[in-house]
Amino acid sequence: MKRGIFISFEGSEGCGKSTQISHLTQLLKDCGREVLITREPGGTVIGEKIRDLLQFTPEAEEMTNETELLLFAASRAQLVREVIQPALENGICVIADRFLDSTTVYQGIGRGLNASSVSKINDFAVGELKPDWTVLLDMDAAAGHARALASRSAQKDRIEDQPLTFFEKVRQGYLKLAEQNPERIEMFDASGSIDQLAKEIRQSCFSRFDCLEEK
Amino acid sequence: MKRGIFISFEGSEGCGKSTQISHLTQLLKDCGREVLITREPGGTVIGEKIRDLLQFTPEAEEMTNETELLLFAASRAQLVREVIQPALENGICVIADRFLDSTTVYQGIGRGLNASSVSKINDFAVGELKPDWTVLLDMDAAAGHARALASRSAQKDRIEDQPLTFFEKVRQGYLKLAEQNPERIEMFDASGSIDQLAKEIRQSCFSRFDCLEEK
Repeated sequence: MKRGIFISFEGSEGCGKSTQISHLTQLLKDCGREVLITREPGGTVIGEKIRDLLQFTPEAEEMTNETELLLFAASRAQLVREVIQPALENGICVIADRFLDSTTVYQGIGRGLNASSVSKINDFAVGELKPDWTVLLDMDAAAGHARALASRSAQKDRIEDQPLTFFEKVRQGYLKLAEQNPERIEMFDASGSIDQLAKEIRQSCFSRFDCLEEK
Repeated sequence: MKRGIFISFEGSEGCGKSTQISHLTQLLKDCGREVLITREPGGTVIGEKIRDLLQFTPEAEEMTNETELLLFAASRAQLVREVIQPALENGICVIADRFLDSTTVYQGIGRGLNASSVSKINDFAVGELKPDWTVLLDMDAAAGHARALASRSAQKDRIEDQPLTFFEKVRQGYLKLAEQNPERIEMFDASGSIDQLAKEIRQSCFSRFDCLEEK
């Protein structure tokens, strides 16, 4: 049996990840592939409890940056071993709505934690597993921030509640990561139309994975 | 103001930590010191939630070793910054019922995780903070295991439910750590009488910390 393809989506809030994930999911299904979408933190029973702890408890306002990073890593360690690896081994394609690059960027660069420690903890959490392809949706930080705020209603989580400078740091962090990992991370301009972006991702997907063929 | 003294207690289940912590707490109070006892995982609102997740949910049976380690580290990162450091800075003595050596031994050696990764994650969680003194209560693994099982009633947690070989590995792990950290970790034979052990710890405490004097 063919191993599944593992694709992660990354980008700031408001960049349109969810929409593009839907498009790519349909594309893979049209190629006869089974697709599993994961989200972080969460995706397992234990991970969802960690997600609640990170996002929705009032006590989380007192959470230290180190604790936050370790909780994200704990959720991911569980997700990789309980869900992602078994799925890939069973030929299922996995699309991760955020994966290790989010931790590097949000907790490492955004919160100013030591980059080498963040990288070590990331590696420990994911073991040997890296995405085959990472789709990075890039857009101007202010535009993304405004779009994110407009699309959410009352309940904002801890990360979305950050000032604009945080989003600018996140964007720069992603651009640097893309430079350092040109084989894996592919950057797309997410400021244009949804359809145009979907078309570009689709073309790139077909040229990258020879095994895919529309049925 | 004098900085508080930071002491951790380590040892297998059944070694008599709680009793000896009570004795040492009284000794420090008799010297006019304020004392705070912390336990791991837990000790903060966030840490107690992590403790629940680690010990009492049925889903925890499916928890991976990596997730377990990261959750312990997350709880400790919070405890250090929210409780231990501020207490020490305010002159309060802190006695930790388990600290970083437990992670090294239980998750690292006991579960067979990579020692260098465990050490890196430990360092990240505690920052610069190490105990001034670590009291290691050593006893035969079988005797400790039997004592632990006898003293607990219905609800056993995940770690106590391990086979005897696990406890033997834990004991050997502690002995190795004590060898590697002779300045910080002091080993006491915990197989004898409670009073004799309390006396030995007391003597060692006074000879180690010149600043202590009974009032």
